[in-house]
Amino acid sequence: MRSRTTDARRHHDPDVRGFASDNYAGAHPEVLAALAVANGGHQIAYGEDDYTGHLQRVMHSHFGPTAEAFPVFNGTGANVVALQALTDRWGAVICAETAHINVDEGGAPERVAGLKLLTVPTPDGKLTPELIDRQAYGWEDEHRAMPQVVSIAQNTELGTVYTPDEIRAICTHAHERGMKVHLDGARISNAAASLDVPMRTFTNTVGVDVLSYGGTKNGMLFGEAVVVLDPDAARAMKHLRKLSMQLASKMRFVSVQLEALLAGDLWLRNARHSNAMAQRLVEGVRTVDGVEILHPVQANAVFARLPHEVSVRLQRRFRFYFWDEKAGDVRWMCSFDTTEDDVDAFVQALKEEMARQR
Amino acid sequence: MRSRTTDARRHHDPDVRGFASDNYAGAHPEVLAALAVANGGHQIAYGEDDYTGHLQRVMHSHFGPTAEAFPVFNGTGANVVALQALTDRWGAVICAETAHINVDEGGAPERVAGLKLLTVPTPDGKLTPELIDRQAYGWEDEHRAMPQVVSIAQNTELGTVYTPDEIRAICTHAHERGMKVHLDGARISNAAASLDVPMRTFTNTVGVDVLSYGGTKNGMLFGEAVVVLDPDAARAMKHLRKLSMQLASKMRFVSVQLEALLAGDLWLRNARHSNAMAQRLVEGVRTVDGVEILHPVQANAVFARLPHEVSVRLQRRFRFYFWDEKAGDVRWMCSFDTTEDDVDAFVQALKEEMARQR
Amino acid sequence: MRSRTTDARRHHDPDVRGFASDNYAGAHPEVLAALAVANGGHQIAYGEDDYTGHLQRVMHSHFGPTAEAFPVFNGTGANVVALQALTDRWGAVICAETAHINVDEGGAPERVAGLKLLTVPTPDGKLTPELIDRQAYGWEDEHRAMPQVVSIAQNTELGTVYTPDEIRAICTHAHERGMKVHLDGARISNAAASLDVPMRTFTNTVGVDVLSYGGTKNGMLFGEAVVVLDPDAARAMKHLRKLSMQLASKMRFVSVQLEALLAGDLWLRNARHSNAMAQRLVEGVRTVDGVEILHPVQANAVFARLPHEVSVRLQRRFRFYFWDEKAGDVRWMCSFDTTEDDVDAFVQALKEEMARQR
Amino acid sequence: MRSRTTDARRHHDPDVRGFASDNYAGAHPEVLAALAVANGGHQIAYGEDDYTGHLQRVMHSHFGPTAEAFPVFNGTGANVVALQALTDRWGAVICAETAHINVDEGGAPERVAGLKLLTVPTPDGKLTPELIDRQAYGWEDEHRAMPQVVSIAQNTELGTVYTPDEIRAICTHAHERGMKVHLDGARISNAAASLDVPMRTFTNTVGVDVLSYGGTKNGMLFGEAVVVLDPDAARAMKHLRKLSMQLASKMRFVSVQLEALLAGDLWLRNARHSNAMAQRLVEGVRTVDGVEILHPVQANAVFARLPHEVSVRLQRRFRFYFWDEKAGDVRWMCSFDTTEDDVDAFVQALKEEMARQR
Repeated sequence: MRSRTTDARRHHDPDVRGFASDNYAGAHPEVLAALAVANGGHQIAYGEDDYTGHLQRVMHSHFGPTAEAFPVFNGTGANVVALQALTDRWGAVICAETAHINVDEGGAPERVAGLKLLTVPTPDGKLTPELIDRQAYGWEDEHRAMPQVVSIAQNTELGTVYTPDEIRAICTHAHERGMKVHLDGARISNAAASLDVPMRTFTNTVGVDVLSYGGTKNGMLFGEAVVVLDPDAARAMKHLRKLSMQLASKMRFVSVQLEALLAGDLWLRNARHSNAMAQRLVEGVRTVDGVEILHPVQANAVFARLPHEVSVRLQRRFRFYFWDEKAGDVRWMCSFDTTEDDVDAFVQALKEEMARQR
Repeated sequence: MRSRTTDARRHHDPDVRGFASDNYAGAHPEVLAALAVANGGHQIAYGEDDYTGHLQRVMHSHFGPTAEAFPVFNGTGANVVALQALTDRWGAVICAETAHINVDEGGAPERVAGLKLLTVPTPDGKLTPELIDRQAYGWEDEHRAMPQVVSIAQNTELGTVYTPDEIRAICTHAHERGMKVHLDGARISNAAASLDVPMRTFTNTVGVDVLSYGGTKNGMLFGEAVVVLDPDAARAMKHLRKLSMQLASKMRFVSVQLEALLAGDLWLRNARHSNAMAQRLVEGVRTVDGVEILHPVQANAVFARLPHEVSVRLQRRFRFYFWDEKAGDVRWMCSFDTTEDDVDAFVQALKEEMARQR
Repeated sequence: MRSRTTDARRHHDPDVRGFASDNYAGAHPEVLAALAVANGGHQIAYGEDDYTGHLQRVMHSHFGPTAEAFPVFNGTGANVVALQALTDRWGAVICAETAHINVDEGGAPERVAGLKLLTVPTPDGKLTPELIDRQAYGWEDEHRAMPQVVSIAQNTELGTVYTPDEIRAICTHAHERGMKVHLDGARISNAAASLDVPMRTFTNTVGVDVLSYGGTKNGMLFGEAVVVLDPDAARAMKHLRKLSMQLASKMRFVSVQLEALLAGDLWLRNARHSNAMAQRLVEGVRTVDGVEILHPVQANAVFARLPHEVSVRLQRRFRFYFWDEKAGDVRWMCSFDTTEDDVDAFVQALKEEMARQR
Repeated sequence: MRSRTTDARRHHDPDVRGFASDNYAGAHPEVLAALAVANGGHQIAYGEDDYTGHLQRVMHSHFGPTAEAFPVFNGTGANVVALQALTDRWGAVICAETAHINVDEGGAPERVAGLKLLTVPTPDGKLTPELIDRQAYGWEDEHRAMPQVVSIAQNTELGTVYTPDEIRAICTHAHERGMKVHLDGARISNAAASLDVPMRTFTNTVGVDVLSYGGTKNGMLFGEAVVVLDPDAARAMKHLRKLSMQLASKMRFVSVQLEALLAGDLWLRNARHSNAMAQRLVEGVRTVDGVEILHPVQANAVFARLPHEVSVRLQRRFRFYFWDEKAGDVRWMCSFDTTEDDVDAFVQALKEEMARQR
């Protein structure tokens, strides 16, 4: 697929892959090719170009005719712009304690948007109406930051996937209490592939107001989009995107990547593949004694518990991260470019390192 | 240079160009090609990849061994991250009234960073020690936001270029008063080409502490870098970039574009070409009676004053913006892909429309 | 009026007064006495006490039945809470370059509220529709912070007073453009005394949406109030006051002071007195050759220009501030407790120091 | 103690007290009297007055010669100013999940200061080194808001009191990790009275860097102070206080109240009295079957669990709050003006309402 000729400007080995993160991967070749299509000539900057215009139609085919996509640079940006659009200055956001927006955004929601996150411990990264109620109160009490949004991730930070009915219950519950629902879809494609349903089935069909559409982990070089599903839910998106420093001047190059994924089935092929690799991986790992699988493997992540020193030795052979180093928990991520051979080699290495342990 | 075969996925005419902005242009083909070089295999995300590592050495060749580059997404991001790195929570920034950070960032410095901008009217977009002193006072007075940074743009928003000595005088003046100097280099390449000196000659050599290096307008798809010239001036850049939502996960794709520009002379070729086109344009315009040139044309922008209705008719033929519509002022920008034919056709059209006026 | 018996706990000389500021004065004895009235027993905290309830009725007598007062601690707080209530996250505020919110709040509007101030130079501290239009544009342009509020001060920072018609013109102009009007009334009582009209005549009657009512300079120990005149203009005031750290727990002690001023005519007596002292002062100063009066003296401030060394010598005898030290401009403020003797002694001292000059 | 003559301006019954909060009480008469002492004449505004100067010496007598007090308006203000002084823009604060700064500031730390709170569940409101370690990690990781401060409250929001050794252990632990320690002393006087030690014994002696000194609940009309114990820990306090809208113009009236409490033993008398009333209350409550005491009663708060309908009936006779309404938990606060009769009447009422329950 890729030329093996030596390129003097190449600083890395394109044949090395690991299980650290789906953003360790590069871009899908079809995405890269799309950039050349959009290149050349002059196009209006800041989103009035033909590719961003066309992207709206592509998004409608996935999320219905009221959806409007606002391309942004990265996931933090998508989430923080979306949450600002759904809240007043005095608003707060209910989310899982393990949510990416709580643990992995460097405090951007608080720092940039002044948002307090009202967190709830969860067993598996998933909120429920009952869990939401642990923070959903006190709207009239000015001593409390006002809960205005419930933010969920699909799939969750722990690799679990909500059913459409679970999300519908959350949306109904939130809306009845005057709150809106944001869905962090950094890996929304993996969730759709896992559930084997269109993305709308677990988003606008069941009441999600605004979502962060994740493109980077699905094969783009960079780029995400805030997708407003309920036009009444979010105002002044253009202004919020700009003041949040997420407005690309040459936006055509974000939009055409999104189009490359979404106009055909590349988004789904990539997601299905990485999910399948995670299934292959978890099946392989289950054959290894002494390694515990921690959460249902419903997308492209495998969480496991194993002896710390085994992980350390294994990390010398394949890149991956500890999730909770004290507990010995690790995360193994598969990507659109993970191969069956990669998985098999990794399982074999795991077996060898576990064997050395005894 | 570009295939003329019809691509069904192409939504625009790659042969149409205008004079609206240098970010209406696409990417330089060499930049696009570099993306493919960096693709494939897994690279550590968030800036520990080999391309970002290599970029540091490239930056050293331009700005000396203490320079450190932090790639970011866009110019607003570069400026706001840089200014945060140079200020305390109680700091303020002195800049020209016409500065991009004051008039064209959607309030991001105030909104994201809480920074007050202390502005000064200038005749030509350039600050001087005397002009700075109109705002440089009151450091002990808590009723006044504390001036901690002088921010200049090279070239300025009005297309003028500081001499190295002018910047040296500003830096000396600022440093003597305990302030640091930020240079907004959205078009730093054009300034270097205009002055015909290395970029360091008007940055670290004369005392600039931190600069925003502009890649997008010089031929990248997207991407800029905060370049810290004085390591003592800026702390915690990594943290500020992340919380400001400017941290790219697949950073190799930003860094390799910067490398494509800066490792050879592409940055300078592009800048010289767009400057030359602006010179050709201003020379052409000077042959047209009734059109006034407003500022010295020292980079790739031409500011002119002409009858409003002429501009309106001309805009039906070529894209460009009013700068001050009431005054009849317009801005014509040249880009790395502007051709001599583009310029000549534009001057001819201007002549025709002016002639219709009489 | 005040006991001259030595109090061992007294650290200052209660007979020394100057012309530095109306907040160098203490509290009016009737205000102090009111605190004792409100003391004792338990009252609900945070504004549900009987004094805050009663204050609403007092405010209605001044500003009509739709007015609602939100007591806060200080003027910065009143202004920043009010401006937040009138703006979205993406909003900006048009004000005079000399406005207190621009030059004397330590950057609080930018830092706490993320607000960009769009400033306009004025000859006398007063905005007009024409001056407002220098910043009132670009509502659709996300590159510009969106002008949502015009903020004026009555009286202005330069001691000038708008006529009701002037404010009506501003309000009409702002409302036609979808903007709201905030009035910084840190010295609103002085303006009413100067115009000899009820306060409503130049506020809700002519279209002001929200005002900052100033109590401290009118004789309170501390305390101001945001008064919402148009209930549709400002939402969630309770929440904004709390998160802006302006919510007093024992609010009865703020409210009863406001009541002490406003239930009778103490507010007006105090204002008339300080205005009269300023008139006496300016008349005295006019008899001194070589001292130039800079602005119409319409409230309790006198701005003058005189030789720098005279001011320096005079400051050894009476406290006052330079306004623009380079230009030799000074500000002399009268207060509710300034006496005729104070004024006469000051004018005499000014004469002496001017005489030494020749 | 208080005149019973009818005052037409009095809107409340000064003989009604409850157990809702120590800020439902008014001001101590000695505090009120101090205001008159400080009144009269002109004093420099914004903190350069003689009372604020004298306050520093008073504070030294409690906290040693390096302490510096910055009077502010309220507790939210004291905490948020202090936390800003201890953190960089990228900093975060570790605190108990039940901390006032987390649950009762309306999101001010996040909204005004952009601070992320890293919370830890605790059994009794008290942090320990072990509990701190659940959030104290990842200083090098820009994806995580950087833990820079541990904030504890003495006494805690649950009425429990740290021993000096417990605070020492926290300080040592925090300092070893490069973090500073903030102590929220909204009820620091009650803690000192409870431990029967000087305040310094559990603050600067054991390593606390900055504290919020609470005056309002100890008998002031309003007013707190940020007390910087380690001058190296906090910079630019004056500027942070101003931009946080916590700078009183007539500061003498805050400072003289603090002096009234702290120059003699009023602070301690008030605290001992309210603590004693809480002890009398808890002893009384223990004689009532069916009421469970929830936390050790170490200061002036009693937390209890009893049948919900009993609480509702009791609230018709005495004001107090539910703490966790679902669980049937209530909080009963004693104040400096709570009398033995108040307590005895309350216990009697509780007995009666519990008896009606059976």
